[in-house]
Amino acid sequence: MVKPAGKSSSPSLLDRIIAIVGPTGVITDPREQEGYVVDWRKLYRGATPAVVRPGSADEVARVVGICAETGTAIVPQGGNTGMCGASVPRPAGAEIVLSLARMNRVLEVDALNSTISVEAGCILANIQQAARDAGRLFPLSLGAEGSCQIGGNLSTNAGGVNVLRYGNTRDLVLGLQVVLPDGRVWDGMRGLRKDNTGYDMKQLFVGAEGSLGIITAAVLKLFPLPRSRATAWAAVSDPRAALELLALVREHCGDRVTAFELISRDCLELVLRHIPGTRDPLPAPHGWYVLTEIGDAQPGVAARGDLERALAAAMERGLSADAAIAASEGQSQALWRLRESIPEAARDEPGMLYRHDISIAVSQVPAFIEEARAALRASFPGANVICFGHLGDGNLHYNAFVAGRLREDPAAREAGDVTQTVYDIVSRFHGSFSAEHGIGQSKLAEMTRYKSALELELMRRLKATFDPAGIMNPGKVLPRKD
Amino acid sequence: MVKPAGKSSSPSLLDRIIAIVGPTGVITDPREQEGYVVDWRKLYRGATPAVVRPGSADEVARVVGICAETGTAIVPQGGNTGMCGASVPRPAGAEIVLSLARMNRVLEVDALNSTISVEAGCILANIQQAARDAGRLFPLSLGAEGSCQIGGNLSTNAGGVNVLRYGNTRDLVLGLQVVLPDGRVWDGMRGLRKDNTGYDMKQLFVGAEGSLGIITAAVLKLFPLPRSRATAWAAVSDPRAALELLALVREHCGDRVTAFELISRDCLELVLRHIPGTRDPLPAPHGWYVLTEIGDAQPGVAARGDLERALAAAMERGLSADAAIAASEGQSQALWRLRESIPEAARDEPGMLYRHDISIAVSQVPAFIEEARAALRASFPGANVICFGHLGDGNLHYNAFVAGRLREDPAAREAGDVTQTVYDIVSRFHGSFSAEHGIGQSKLAEMTRYKSALELELMRRLKATFDPAGIMNPGKVLPRKD
Repeated sequence: MVKPAGKSSSPSLLDRIIAIVGPTGVITDPREQEGYVVDWRKLYRGATPAVVRPGSADEVARVVGICAETGTAIVPQGGNTGMCGASVPRPAGAEIVLSLARMNRVLEVDALNSTISVEAGCILANIQQAARDAGRLFPLSLGAEGSCQIGGNLSTNAGGVNVLRYGNTRDLVLGLQVVLPDGRVWDGMRGLRKDNTGYDMKQLFVGAEGSLGIITAAVLKLFPLPRSRATAWAAVSDPRAALELLALVREHCGDRVTAFELISRDCLELVLRHIPGTRDPLPAPHGWYVLTEIGDAQPGVAARGDLERALAAAMERGLSADAAIAASEGQSQALWRLRESIPEAARDEPGMLYRHDISIAVSQVPAFIEEARAALRASFPGANVICFGHLGDGNLHYNAFVAGRLREDPAAREAGDVTQTVYDIVSRFHGSFSAEHGIGQSKLAEMTRYKSALELELMRRLKATFDPAGIMNPGKVLPRKD
Repeated sequence: MVKPAGKSSSPSLLDRIIAIVGPTGVITDPREQEGYVVDWRKLYRGATPAVVRPGSADEVARVVGICAETGTAIVPQGGNTGMCGASVPRPAGAEIVLSLARMNRVLEVDALNSTISVEAGCILANIQQAARDAGRLFPLSLGAEGSCQIGGNLSTNAGGVNVLRYGNTRDLVLGLQVVLPDGRVWDGMRGLRKDNTGYDMKQLFVGAEGSLGIITAAVLKLFPLPRSRATAWAAVSDPRAALELLALVREHCGDRVTAFELISRDCLELVLRHIPGTRDPLPAPHGWYVLTEIGDAQPGVAARGDLERALAAAMERGLSADAAIAASEGQSQALWRLRESIPEAARDEPGMLYRHDISIAVSQVPAFIEEARAALRASFPGANVICFGHLGDGNLHYNAFVAGRLREDPAAREAGDVTQTVYDIVSRFHGSFSAEHGIGQSKLAEMTRYKSALELELMRRLKATFDPAGIMNPGKVLPRKD
C-alpha cells in the first residue's frame, strides 16, 4: 500500500502518478527510498514524497505532464553515482525523484552504422558489453561504470579515462529523446554523422544536469575495437618534460594514444605505502612519472614497437631517464593499478584531504603546478599536494592534504580556504573548477565566484525559456541570483 | 566619400558606424558591394545600404550595439562561399552586411595544448598552414578552403572530407568569442578539453548561421600531423559490399581511416568522358567503386601494408573483385582527381541537374539508393542518377539528371518535384535533407515540411530568447510561421 509522505504532495497527485506507473513504480517508504535520497559520496541527504520509476518514455512524459500541471518539482536520477549532489532531492522534501532505472533496454546495435541506441537507464558497463558483442567499442569508461546510467553520463557530460582519444560524452552522442518540462516528448533519435538542418537541439540537454528536460533515450557512436595495447611507465624529471614526452609519443603513435597520465612521486609513495602487493616499476626513484597507453586496431606488437621507439627518442633527448614497457597483460594491469589506487591510498593518510577536479590548457600544466604548490605551502604550512591526473586532457586531480587539520564533517570538505586558493589560481590560468564532475549542489558558490555575470545571465535565460516554472531539478547547476 | 544608399538606413546610422570602423570600413558603392550581396552559386542577389568591415571584436560589438538600438538587421558574412544563401542580404535592402574579413589574425598556436586561436575572418587554408608550421594538423578541409573563413565554417558547422575521422566543425571547437545581438561580448575563449561548469553556451552559436550572434574568434583543436598515407581504389559489386568493405578496412586500420568514398560506375564514366587525362584505374568495368585513404602518424609504408591486408581479405570474402593501391603520391592524386572531378564532369552533361546533399544512417545507404533510384525512374523516365559521396559518414551527393528538361533559371533548380521525391524518401529513412550545407534561404520550405512542429517551436524559442528583436540574419535558417 502506497501512502503519500510529503506535505507538498497531495494524495491525488500520487494517485494520478500511480495510475500511470503502477503501484510498484512508486516508492514512498523512507527505508526503501534510502538509495535514492542520499548521494554516492554521502555528502547530501534529501527527502522526497515519492520515488517514481516509470517504465517507458511515454510514462515519463505523462508523469512530467502532471508535475507541470501541479507545479511539482522533479529530480531526474540515473545511477546516482554523481560527485556533486545533482541527482538527489533537497532536504525540504518538495521534489519527487524520477528514476530512469527501469528503462534499461539496449534498443538497437547497428554495427554497420557504428551506433547503439539505448534507453536512458542502461548501465554504462552493459552498453560497453553490447558494443563489444557486436565487435565495436563504446569508449566511455569511468570508475562507476558498473552502476552509473547513460542518462546520467549524458546529463553530466561525463569524462573518464578515454577522453584524450575519444572525447567527452558530448562527443559520443548522435541523437537524443527528451521529455521536456511541459511533458511533451522531443524525438531527436537520429543516428546521423552529418545533419545541418537548424539548431542542434540535443546539445542543450547534454551536460544540463537534468535542469532543462529528462533524457529518456540516446543514439551513441561506436568505434573500431582495439585489438592490442601497449602500456608504458616512464620517469620524467618534471611536468614540463612530461608535456614534451606527450608531444613525442603523439608524433610516433598519432591518434592511437589512449591515455597519458601524470603521477607525482608523492602519489606513487602513497600507493606503495598503503596498497599491498604494489612495487615501484623502476629501480631508482624519480620526481614524476607518466603512464601512457596506445590502443591499436591490429593485433600483435606493432603498437608496442611504436611506443618503444617513442620512449627511446625521449631518452635520447633527455626527457625520460628510465621507462618500463609492459611485456604482458598482467604487467599492464599492474601499472594501471598503481595509478588507480591513488585515491584509495590517499584515504589512508592522516589529515584533511581537499579534492579538486580541475582543468587548464595542457601547455599550462607545469606553470600551474608550480604556482599552486607555492601558494598552498605559503598559506598552509602543513599542506602536502597529491597531484595526478589526465595530463593529455589538462585535467588534474589536484588534491591537498593539510596534516594539522582534522577530518571534519563531510560537507565541510567541499568548501574552505584551501579550495579557494586552488580555484583562484585555476581561474587566473583561465581553467575550469569542474573538469569532469559538474556543478550539482556542491559548486554553486564557485559558479557565482568564477563565472562571468553575462554567462550566468545567458544560462538563466536558457533555463527560463525551457523550464519557465522551474520544476526541473531546482537548486542545481544554476546559483540563485544575489 | 561614403554616401548612404539604402532608404531604411538613416544618414546618422551610417555616420555612427563610420565613426567606429572608419570611412574605409564601410562600402556603400553598389559596384564595390557586388561580392558581398551575391552568393557563391549566384542563386541569390540581395541589396544592402552598407557593407561594414570592422577590424576588431570591440568594433563589431559597438556596431551591433547601434544596430540593436536602431532595430537595424545584420547579415554576418565570412568568405561568402556558402551553398544556401545564408550569408547574403535579402533583396529588400534593409540589412547591413557585417563582414568579418578584416579580422583575419591567427592569435596563437599552442602546440603543446594542440590548439590554435584565431579571429573569425581567418581563411581556412591559412589556419591549416599555421597548424602545419607548428607540426600539427587542423583537419577541417573542404573545396572552398582557399577563400572560406572559419567564422562561416563554425556558423554552418561545415563538414568536408575528413569528417569520418575528425568530425564536423562542431567537434573541432573548444572556445568561442561571440558578439550577442545586444552588442555585448560573450568571452568563451577557453582552450580546455574538459569543462563541466554549467551549460555549454558555445554549442548554441555553432551551426546557427549567424542567427543568434556573431562569432568573432575561436579556439580550435589540433591533431598529430599524419606523416604517411595510403590510398586505394577498389571495385565493389554494390553499395552493400562497399559497406562491408568499410567495416573490414576499419577492422584492419582502426581510426586511421580518413576517407571512404562511394562512387558509381556512372560517375566514373562521366569523368572519363569529360575530364582530359583521366583513365580507369582498373582494367575491367565494375558497378561501383570505393576510394579509401589511411593516414598514419608514422612515415613509411606501415599504413599501406595494413590497407593491402584489408583489401586482400576483402577479395577473399568476395567483397571486391579488383583493387589498385597507389604506389606514389602522384598515383594517389590521380585517384583523388577522379573523385573530385565528378561535379565538374556533371556540369558538362546535357539536361537539368538536381543536387541533393543528404545523409542517412550508414547502414541504410544501400536500401536508400535502391529505393530512391526506383522511385525516380518510375516518376521521371528520363532520370539518370549520379550518386557519390562520403559513405563513411552516410553523406551522399545524390544528384539526378533529367535529360528531357531544360536547364531553367538557377533559382528554380533549388526546388521541384524531383527534389521532393528524393527528400520524401530521405525523410522515411530518418535522414537529413541537408547534411553539410545548412539551410540559409534555400531550404526553408524543407524545414517546414520535414521538421517536427515541436522542433521548430524549440528553435523559435531559442531565437526569441537570444535575439528578441530579430535583427540577426533574419529570413535565414528558421522558416516563417504559417
